[in-house]
Amino acid sequence: MRLPKHIGIIPDGNRRWALDRGMEKKDGYRHGISPGMTLYHMCRELGIEEMSFYGFTVDNTKRPSTQRQAFTKACVAAVEELSKEDASLLVLGNTQSPMFPPELLPYTRRHDFGAGGMRINFLVNYSWEWDMGFKPDNSRKAPAASAAIGPVLRTADVSRIDLVIRWGGRRRLSGFLPVQSVYSDIYVVDDYWPDFRKEHVEAALKWYSDQDVTLGG
Amino acid sequence: MRLPKHIGIIPDGNRRWALDRGMEKKDGYRHGISPGMTLYHMCRELGIEEMSFYGFTVDNTKRPSTQRQAFTKACVAAVEELSKEDASLLVLGNTQSPMFPPELLPYTRRHDFGAGGMRINFLVNYSWEWDMGFKPDNSRKAPAASAAIGPVLRTADVSRIDLVIRWGGRRRLSGFLPVQSVYSDIYVVDDYWPDFRKEHVEAALKWYSDQDVTLGG
Repeated sequence: MRLPKHIGIIPDGNRRWALDRGMEKKDGYRHGISPGMTLYHMCRELGIEEMSFYGFTVDNTKRPSTQRQAFTKACVAAVEELSKEDASLLVLGNTQSPMFPPELLPYTRRHDFGAGGMRINFLVNYSWEWDMGFKPDNSRKAPAASAAIGPVLRTADVSRIDLVIRWGGRRRLSGFLPVQSVYSDIYVVDDYWPDFRKEHVEAALKWYSDQDVTLGG
Repeated sequence: MRLPKHIGIIPDGNRRWALDRGMEKKDGYRHGISPGMTLYHMCRELGIEEMSFYGFTVDNTKRPSTQRQAFTKACVAAVEELSKEDASLLVLGNTQSPMFPPELLPYTRRHDFGAGGMRINFLVNYSWEWDMGFKPDNSRKAPAASAAIGPVLRTADVSRIDLVIRWGGRRRLSGFLPVQSVYSDIYVVDDYWPDFRKEHVEAALKWYSDQDVTLGG
C-alpha cells in the first residue's frame, strides 16, 4: 500500500459532538485529546514521517471565551502529551497575540523529544493570512500584502501535505496550510472528531493508496 | 436556497473520458467546450455573480505536445465563445512564457462583453507559485519567495470562492487559486467533465445550500 509521507489532520466536530450528548459546546474539546494520541501512535507505527494538526486558529479565538479557554486548554494538553513521546515537535502560530498560550512558547522552536522521529507540526493561534504575510481582511476581496512582511511563509519548515483527513463531515480546508495543501488529497470522515476510530484512518489510507499522484501534471 | 456568489470550476477527466471511448487522450479536450457554455448559461440564469474556470496550468504544459496543443486550442475556443456572450471576462496566467497562447493576450485585461454582468475568470497557463510570487520548486519543501516578486497576488482581482465544483472524481484542489479557495466548500462530481449534466450542478448547489458558512470562525 502506498502511504502518505505527510498527513494533515483537521479534527472538526467537537462542539456538535458535545451538543448531541446534551453537553455544552465547550465540553467537546477535552474529548479530542485522547483521539489525537491514538492517531499519533497509529501513524508512528505505520512509519508516517510527518503530521500536521490543526489546533486552533485566530478566527476560532473570536468565539465565546468559555469555548476559547476550553480549546486552548485542550491544545496545551495535547502538545504536552506529545512531548512525552518520541517526536520532533514544532508549534506554529501567531505568538504576537494574547491568544497564544504562553505555556506553548517553548515549543515554537522544533525540538526532538524522546527518540525524536516523526515530525509533528501543531498549529496554535494559526491563520493563513499570518502564514502568508497578508493583512487580515474580512471582505470578499483577495487579500493585500502586509507591507511589513515579505513573501516568505511563516510555516516554511512544514513540508508538502499528501493527505488531509478531516473529521466532522465538512468538505473544505478552512484555511489549513493553503500552500502545503495545494496538491493534497482530501478525505472527509463524517463522524465527529471525538468519535475517532482507527477504522477512519484505515479507510482514508486505503482510499489514498488508490489515488494517482500527479502534482498538478 | 442560499446560492454561492462565486463558483470555481475544475473541469477534470477529459483524458480519461477519451480513453474510455477508445479515443486518444488529447481528443477529450474539445468535448469540454460545450459543457462549459451550458454551465455558463445555467449559472447566469441563476444569477451567480462570479465564476472561475481552471483552464490549464503551467504543470499541465509539461504533458506531450499533442495534448498541450489540444487543451490550449480548447481554452482559446472557450474564451472566444464566452466573449460572444454577456460577461465581464478576464484571462489570468503567466503571459511571460511561450506556453501562453497569443490569441488570448487581449483578454488579460478585464473587459465587458455584450451586456457585461457575470464576472468570469479563466485561468490559462496558471500556476499557484506564479500567483503567489513563489519560485517553482519540485521538492517537498515549502516554497521560497522569488526575490523579484512581492507578496501581492497576481490574481488580486479574483474574489473569494464560495463553492468549488470538481468533475472527474478527484478530491483535491490541484493548485487551483489557493488563496481564494481557503474557505471554499468543495463538491466532487464523479463523472468526467465531458459527461457534464445540469443535474451535477443542481446537486452541488443543493448540497452547498445545506452547508453552514463560518469562514473559519
